Amino acid sequence: MAGKRISSGIGEIELLRAIRRRTAQGGRGGAVRLGIGDDCALLGIEPGEEIAITTDLSIAGRHFQLDWHPPESVGHRTLARGLSDLAAMGARPIAAFLSLGLPRQLTLANSRGGSWADRFFDGLFRLANAHKTPLAGGDLAESPVALADIVLVGAVPAGASLRRSGARPGDLLYVTGELGGAAVGLARLAGSGGRLRGSRNPERVPLGLARHLYPQPRVSVGLALRQRRLATAAIDLSDGLSTDLAHLCEESGVAALLETEKLPHAKGASLDQAVHGGEDYELLFAARPSVRMPRSIGGVPVTRIGYLLNPSPGQPVVLASSGQTVAPLEPRGWEHFR
Amino acid sequence: MAGKRISSGIGEIELLRAIRRRTAQGGRGGAVRLGIGDDCALLGIEPGEEIAITTDLSIAGRHFQLDWHPPESVGHRTLARGLSDLAAMGARPIAAFLSLGLPRQLTLANSRGGSWADRFFDGLFRLANAHKTPLAGGDLAESPVALADIVLVGAVPAGASLRRSGARPGDLLYVTGELGGAAVGLARLAGSGGRLRGSRNPERVPLGLARHLYPQPRVSVGLALRQRRLATAAIDLSDGLSTDLAHLCEESGVAALLETEKLPHAKGASLDQAVHGGEDYELLFAARPSVRMPRSIGGVPVTRIGYLLNPSPGQPVVLASSGQTVAPLEPRGWEHFR
Repeated sequence: MAGKRISSGIGEIELLRAIRRRTAQGGRGGAVRLGIGDDCALLGIEPGEEIAITTDLSIAGRHFQLDWHPPESVGHRTLARGLSDLAAMGARPIAAFLSLGLPRQLTLANSRGGSWADRFFDGLFRLANAHKTPLAGGDLAESPVALADIVLVGAVPAGASLRRSGARPGDLLYVTGELGGAAVGLARLAGSGGRLRGSRNPERVPLGLARHLYPQPRVSVGLALRQRRLATAAIDLSDGLSTDLAHLCEESGVAALLETEKLPHAKGASLDQAVHGGEDYELLFAARPSVRMPRSIGGVPVTRIGYLLNPSPGQPVVLASSGQTVAPLEPRGWEHFR
Repeated sequence: MAGKRISSGIGEIELLRAIRRRTAQGGRGGAVRLGIGDDCALLGIEPGEEIAITTDLSIAGRHFQLDWHPPESVGHRTLARGLSDLAAMGARPIAAFLSLGLPRQLTLANSRGGSWADRFFDGLFRLANAHKTPLAGGDLAESPVALADIVLVGAVPAGASLRRSGARPGDLLYVTGELGGAAVGLARLAGSGGRLRGSRNPERVPLGLARHLYPQPRVSVGLALRQRRLATAAIDLSDGLSTDLAHLCEESGVAALLETEKLPHAKGASLDQAVHGGEDYELLFAARPSVRMPRSIGGVPVTRIGYLLNPSPGQPVVLASSGQTVAPLEPRGWEHFR
């Protein structure tokens, strides 16, 4: 990010101006017809397209820790959550919006360089540029707790999006990449009590932390699944495989058998971390058994991990097999207000 | 709201299900092709339309007070902020998205009936239904501080939206409704130390409080201004006339003279409250002097309050006249991180 640093501690208007300058430098997608600076942003889509929209709220102490996470990672992860939702629909990103609430001190430059806010935007814009996704608007407010609500807007040909609800009994179940890597990284970070903050540069982060600090949303894989009609349904793995698989089953009206010995573990990940750990931002999807599934898409491995069944009333929705044993799998991923 | 109450304290999934039920009851606009329950919502617009998007963050202790504001008012005001931004663009609302962060206790039912969250949604859905704006998605999280980020999505014929940037020197300056009413209500609420909480029903609120607790976004006025090509530029009055007029001038590259004796004061509002008080959610707009401006639009009064000038380098952007005296007008409305 060669852009100008955000001038700090001089009010909302100046902060907005600085963000606006950086956004323009980040390149604007053709879809943004009017960006930051009016009551609304204006976006255009192609004839025959629908708009896909998702919002994801990240709050200090819940979704990230000011003590553990480099600000660049918080900015990256904030945007990654939204991009991953677009990926799961097979939508192409066209714009992002950010509502940011920060304690005043996080907008002030410190002795080591830019403010927390500067570094947050470094991480956010780096990922936004990689996905050619301009920041088209948002809101700023002073807040007792740091928080970021990201809105991602995508476009997809009408009727062609991947949904959670399209799977049928008999479909095979696939996952991209590896599972549990984010949980491994989180455990290491948490265990270090803040000593292990990782790098501000995603290319120099120790491998065991990268999957947690700088997860890669599978946008191009989602697009390929949709364009090549490979999948009947998809969801991104944000809350954890056990929970997200239950969501897919519920929306599709199916049950599932997860073959746990087939799960692609990230290095160091336990079975528990692979099955219940959240924030891997891989894609979980279903496909007809007749589909010839590639072993990788755009360099990302694709692994078959189970299949879908007719649901039985009163029976568990998700079963897990391990060798000859089959047992119900409780969703034990993340849920708020629990 | 005859809808079912949100079951409380039983986790995010159940809370989401309850919101989903109420949203469906609220009627869905034709634009929402896929609502709550997938990774993204899907929206459709008419051929030749653009999408208008705005986000507004409301945080307890900053934008509302848990002690003073009935939860219904917080829900209403959260949505009103976004609808008002669409009004200022002349866009028709097609969907809303809400990211809600709440302390756990605000999701629990209490002895007097529903939880804080229930009553928040009562207020939000009442206004959403009045504007036929379905809640199409969002996010929920447990948070140490109550906060709501609202996203409004609208549609407008391409190239036809009202913008802040379209005004020219010589244009006349108009405002809808009355000014300072929200500031009067806020002062009364704050002065009462929480004793004066007003009603949960917008139709039974004492008049002096209604403009603050239940402001009415000027959506239909904005649509009329755009459809009848009455305005060259518009902005909504959220931060206060002095600040929002400066924004309009900056984006249009003009200066302004505000004739303060012409300002339509709300009952009990001082000149200071009319000029600097925020959150009235009226529309401020410019029009060519040749336009025959109606004295009201859809029952909402329209008042001429000044005119626009060529800007002079080094000179103040906004001047205010009072009788024979003309003086610079500093923007003294709301600004964060100041």
